[in-house]
Amino acid sequence: MAMQMSVSISSSSSAFLNQSSLTFSERVGVPPKASGACKCVATEPAEKTAFTTKVSRNANMGKLQAGYLFPEIARKRNAHMLKYPDAKVISLGIGDTTEPIPEVITSAMANRSYALSTLEGYSGYGAEQGEKALRTAIAATFYADLGIEEDDVFVSDGAKCDISRLQVLFGSDVSMACQDPSYPAYVDSSVIMGQTGQFSSDVGKYQNIEYMRCSPENGFFPDLSSVARTDVIFFCSPNNPTGASASRDQLKQLVQFAKDNGSILVYDSAYAKYITDDSPKSIFEIPGAHEVAIETTSFSKYAGFTGVRLGWTVIPKQLLFSDGFPVAKDFNRIVCTCFNGASNISQAGGLACLSPEGLKAMGDVIGFYKENTNIIVDTFNSLGFKVYGGKNAPYVWVHFPGRSSWDVFAEILEKTHVVTTPGSGFGPGGEGFVRVSAFGHRENIIEACRRFKELYN
Amino acid sequence: MAMQMSVSISSSSSAFLNQSSLTFSERVGVPPKASGACKCVATEPAEKTAFTTKVSRNANMGKLQAGYLFPEIARKRNAHMLKYPDAKVISLGIGDTTEPIPEVITSAMANRSYALSTLEGYSGYGAEQGEKALRTAIAATFYADLGIEEDDVFVSDGAKCDISRLQVLFGSDVSMACQDPSYPAYVDSSVIMGQTGQFSSDVGKYQNIEYMRCSPENGFFPDLSSVARTDVIFFCSPNNPTGASASRDQLKQLVQFAKDNGSILVYDSAYAKYITDDSPKSIFEIPGAHEVAIETTSFSKYAGFTGVRLGWTVIPKQLLFSDGFPVAKDFNRIVCTCFNGASNISQAGGLACLSPEGLKAMGDVIGFYKENTNIIVDTFNSLGFKVYGGKNAPYVWVHFPGRSSWDVFAEILEKTHVVTTPGSGFGPGGEGFVRVSAFGHRENIIEACRRFKELYN
Repeated sequence: MAMQMSVSISSSSSAFLNQSSLTFSERVGVPPKASGACKCVATEPAEKTAFTTKVSRNANMGKLQAGYLFPEIARKRNAHMLKYPDAKVISLGIGDTTEPIPEVITSAMANRSYALSTLEGYSGYGAEQGEKALRTAIAATFYADLGIEEDDVFVSDGAKCDISRLQVLFGSDVSMACQDPSYPAYVDSSVIMGQTGQFSSDVGKYQNIEYMRCSPENGFFPDLSSVARTDVIFFCSPNNPTGASASRDQLKQLVQFAKDNGSILVYDSAYAKYITDDSPKSIFEIPGAHEVAIETTSFSKYAGFTGVRLGWTVIPKQLLFSDGFPVAKDFNRIVCTCFNGASNISQAGGLACLSPEGLKAMGDVIGFYKENTNIIVDTFNSLGFKVYGGKNAPYVWVHFPGRSSWDVFAEILEKTHVVTTPGSGFGPGGEGFVRVSAFGHRENIIEACRRFKELYN
Repeated sequence: MAMQMSVSISSSSSAFLNQSSLTFSERVGVPPKASGACKCVATEPAEKTAFTTKVSRNANMGKLQAGYLFPEIARKRNAHMLKYPDAKVISLGIGDTTEPIPEVITSAMANRSYALSTLEGYSGYGAEQGEKALRTAIAATFYADLGIEEDDVFVSDGAKCDISRLQVLFGSDVSMACQDPSYPAYVDSSVIMGQTGQFSSDVGKYQNIEYMRCSPENGFFPDLSSVARTDVIFFCSPNNPTGASASRDQLKQLVQFAKDNGSILVYDSAYAKYITDDSPKSIFEIPGAHEVAIETTSFSKYAGFTGVRLGWTVIPKQLLFSDGFPVAKDFNRIVCTCFNGASNISQAGGLACLSPEGLKAMGDVIGFYKENTNIIVDTFNSLGFKVYGGKNAPYVWVHFPGRSSWDVFAEILEKTHVVTTPGSGFGPGGEGFVRVSAFGHRENIIEACRRFKELYN
């Protein structure tokens, strides 16, 4: 019986929990999934069972499906590498930057590090909202003439973290909408906060979330006339994963839609510097956005800061809850209570990013990834696939009509040793697509494309 | 009328919102607090009012009292400095480290920064749970022979941030207890998550929080026989602000209490390395703690990392919700969804902290602050005050029987230009006390003590 139970537990646990280090009595305390062994426990309890607290698991956590997408992809990549230890696996999956950070930026971080060893250069707790010089530089660089001031900018350790802090700010009583497909952190953080119902596996959606379908048919911009009113609307442009960016006219429609509904728009512009056409790079380019919109973004994909951790969120003073209370004031309270500021060293890096040399260096890195993007787009075009994205974003969205995204993901991984991301991981609207990231060394991009051609020619 | 309204708005807004940059129409959109001017608005609305969304403010945010304690203190310090621009203000208030970080640690961070500019040294997204080498070093340094393994350790950007992530993990349906007085992040994050009722200003407590009184009368350890059962118990030892550390016997009682009640104990050991007697430095020194306890802590007060941001939380595999689901597995999901790992540069610093040279250097810094502590303790003792703490913590807890903490805080600031922290900011049990932090340059500690003697001799 012990054997059976231990097996059933292993199968229900994620890899990160090293089950082998649990003692037998601890193992048997974990209720096995429904199975023969399970029933055996119910009728004949083991002599010694593990201690359980009397604290109920947060029901919202139980609603979450499988693991968060990107760790899941990483796990599948690692399993593949175990299976093929000699294969040269190329990762175009989780959108992780690969190119070194320009020296003008890293030397600023090194200097700040060294300075922390000196009496003059040491600093302890910084302002939770970020250092004034960085907030000022962000406002000046990204929002000049857009009516955004230094104190509207909250520096953070990244957009993903701020999305969760925004959800904590909104609380559990709001309803939300998001693009389908889109970056999974919006939906998952909403589930965790209790804003949603259960997951309906037949449609691949959580109850009480408004999924705004974005597909080739509507040019990847939702038909707002069919979108129900929600309190909060998450909108990512350029979109992750489709790579589509909304035009000025579309964003005007979106702001008007938010205004008509009295909704708060959370606009994720983490890829704005990849825009090549005249799509707006900030929602605050749209008149009236200051009264309905929050913008969250990051240095991750501009300066290779995915590991350094630095981002920011803008909340204009004009954005008010229904009772007139400023949203920024509550967010300030969240930031002060639940956060302690981004690392001072990362902030020194951010400031260097916004110097004239830093801006040029970031532009060069972005330009490099955009060349990668073109190579990937050309490859899939030459193979006769319908390809979207790529123009204003480092993501290429490849259509495999009628096929399961996870099947295509598995096929590409198995046959080419290239990791991509299955479109359905971003929502049911991503089914039939695969996202190929342009973040990679040039030789890897070229080699991956050679393998794609071998597989699909 | 416009004049009146603008005045009433300014008085209800915190300093961080620069009201002067709002236009008139924006100002009038903020509903003024109840007042004569307010009624005037209700009956004769201004011609143009500002746009408000239809999103209700999160009611839990509305329950919070004033600002989070430490930004409040900073605001009062800044106001004092404006009033006395020539005064040499000494800050022994918010517990901010002042001494330079040892070079063995900063050079590791500088080297990691430089390496990010190289192909070999660049790294993007790290594991959300922290780099394996650091998790391993933390387990080996702090938990050798305590049954804690590398994968039980979650590296973070600080204990305060992890406390909020733990609250998100628990959700809104749990009840909590905390020491009174204690670090305000426990209570405030609980309020934000909706675990509490309203604040009762007559008793200075939130409804549905169990305040465990810690006073000189009970040796700063709660009388557990009079503590109601809660799902979660926050316990900080050495305690912030009282400086009291629980003995081994007391912690055995506490673990047994948690076990009897099926509660989860969140043990904050951020000051453990300041312990000089034989009090346990980790809750996992107590047999059985693995089945009821989480430990959260930080490099902030050990290595001067208050601005660098690095901490960790330990969740043993044996800690299970009532349904047998491992708490660590849900926390892993929170960390993956709401966080993206601590800065890789900060983690390089953390690893250097745990090298033999780093450990010695940290010990020297801690020793320095402990000498400061002795100076402060001796000063208040010599003035005839009852003084607590100081022995196992960098905080001195000075009793001013019968007086209001905020009055004493204001008196000390006004007459000596020294910033302290009013005890009541940590809960009603702190009333009549003031916390004096030992974090400061030696000459400032000596000068502050000279001024204390002048004032209270």
